[in-house]
Amino acid sequence: MRQEPQRERILTGDRVTGKLHLGHYVGSLKKRVKLQEEYDPYFILADVQALTTHFEQPELVRKHLREVALDYLAAGIDPDRSTIFIQSLVPEIAELTVYYSMFVTVNTLRHNPTVKSEAADRGYDDLYYGFLGYPVSQAADITFCKATLVPVGEDQIPHIEQTRKIVRRFNELYGAVFEEPRALVGEVPRLIGLDGKGKMSKSLGNAISLDSSKSEVEAKLKKAVTDPARVYKSDPGHPDICPVFAYHQAFMPEESEDIREQCTQAKIGCAECKLRIARRINDVLEPMRERRAYYEARPKRVEEILQSGTEQARHIARETMLEVREAMNINYFAER
Amino acid sequence: MRQEPQRERILTGDRVTGKLHLGHYVGSLKKRVKLQEEYDPYFILADVQALTTHFEQPELVRKHLREVALDYLAAGIDPDRSTIFIQSLVPEIAELTVYYSMFVTVNTLRHNPTVKSEAADRGYDDLYYGFLGYPVSQAADITFCKATLVPVGEDQIPHIEQTRKIVRRFNELYGAVFEEPRALVGEVPRLIGLDGKGKMSKSLGNAISLDSSKSEVEAKLKKAVTDPARVYKSDPGHPDICPVFAYHQAFMPEESEDIREQCTQAKIGCAECKLRIARRINDVLEPMRERRAYYEARPKRVEEILQSGTEQARHIARETMLEVREAMNINYFAER
Repeated sequence: MRQEPQRERILTGDRVTGKLHLGHYVGSLKKRVKLQEEYDPYFILADVQALTTHFEQPELVRKHLREVALDYLAAGIDPDRSTIFIQSLVPEIAELTVYYSMFVTVNTLRHNPTVKSEAADRGYDDLYYGFLGYPVSQAADITFCKATLVPVGEDQIPHIEQTRKIVRRFNELYGAVFEEPRALVGEVPRLIGLDGKGKMSKSLGNAISLDSSKSEVEAKLKKAVTDPARVYKSDPGHPDICPVFAYHQAFMPEESEDIREQCTQAKIGCAECKLRIARRINDVLEPMRERRAYYEARPKRVEEILQSGTEQARHIARETMLEVREAMNINYFAER
Repeated sequence: MRQEPQRERILTGDRVTGKLHLGHYVGSLKKRVKLQEEYDPYFILADVQALTTHFEQPELVRKHLREVALDYLAAGIDPDRSTIFIQSLVPEIAELTVYYSMFVTVNTLRHNPTVKSEAADRGYDDLYYGFLGYPVSQAADITFCKATLVPVGEDQIPHIEQTRKIVRRFNELYGAVFEEPRALVGEVPRLIGLDGKGKMSKSLGNAISLDSSKSEVEAKLKKAVTDPARVYKSDPGHPDICPVFAYHQAFMPEESEDIREQCTQAKIGCAECKLRIARRINDVLEPMRERRAYYEARPKRVEEILQSGTEQARHIARETMLEVREAMNINYFAER
């Protein structure tokens, strides 16, 4: 069992709702690969969380789970340094969710930013009970493995605050079982989509997925929206409203100021600008393609990684639940 | 493993919030003892459910759980014919609760009669999330063991309807895994308390607990409220407002019309009337005292009963979860 207690434990991961794309890479995945060097990361493949919004299409969740796992491995998540596990196979998360549910009020949950924005979209009364409990189950995800750090973007700090509140309440009621997790701020807002209209998102069809081939990357960038005011190459461009420029900033920041100058001075055309960034993105994706090919040819190995990661997570989960039961005084047959 | 598939499975039990009393005996326990002859009853010691309202006193839950288990055994629940198990030790119930949470709306839960009355008392916004989900976890309690019958009083039929709805929705979404449970109507409203003010309830201090000694029964009945208009023995009584008469109806129905006549005609005094019912109640409690003494002297045996009942419940729970996972297509390592 790979265990180095001196490395601080991180909980991160994804709801498995589709293949990951460049937006995920820039926003979190790239950093996560780095985090392995210093920390002990637990990657949750959140299939139960995915089911809360996709419960009508369970056939997709399984497919997406496999895709995200492959994306992780392709991106460089190293199963010897990180634990990748499947949420639904750790029933202790459901148990903790039920226990935390007891002392979190409905009102508190209604004020959670994610729940609030969802409620605004769909009308509060039509929310599913499970969705309303999202912050509670998130606290369970983080605490079952006693993670103390959670990588987030600035905008997600309130989520961690909610978990900290739940932990404080638990500790107050039953004794100090958990440490309050801290936000590891550093994730960045997601990349703009190829259509320039909003965040890159698979469902909006404006994404470049991490499993794209070289020619797919080129073709997608060729069709990417740029500054609409720039009709001819001789027109000066406005990089700050151009998604292609945003990609330059994200993937080759060292050269992006050059590109800005050339664009605003009409010294570089959109076609060439797109070609350059396509080349750069393909450089980033190339090692991923190799690792992906390796794992795609070895489905048994992928399965083994998920199984042993899940077993590792359950091992920790069982230990946590022993402590929880003892603290709550419901460890009835403790001598067993 | 005691298993007779021809007996239909029943789920019943109690939130473990204190010793059982005569009200429980008359309302449900007496019938449950009978049910063992024909059915395969699963008795849930609902400690998680108890924690939803007692999470601040976990030290009590353990004590109450033991008391209720002893009450069951004393009352004649036979561990060779029935399965007595501890809710919190069946994590599959928490898992099902989480899955069912996905497709039950907040609005549906707000309209549940129990939740509604609680909401009226405490204000909807102050409800705990876990309490709002009471009908969801109840559906999990009933279905994890595939119980098809649930003994209830008339007033509780809406609860079973809620579970049936959840089962229908699950089956619609994922295929026919569960049978819709039916209400076995027959439980009766609880007995009036010794103070004549409301239902017999431990917390109101107007109860005779099943572990009362002979003299405690006599002493408590001696102090029981009767018809306040009957000051002297020669005053005619009004049995319909007298709790002591309610006990006559419940415990010696064959003679209660006689008592009514004697009371309204002032032929029997309250003291004698009380003595008679005390004698009868003691006759009912006497065999319970013997069984209780047997089990109290054998705490290991009680522990064994709870352990093996819980193991039996988990055995069924695991089988159910295999089916649930297969139906939901999240049985990732099914070949293991």
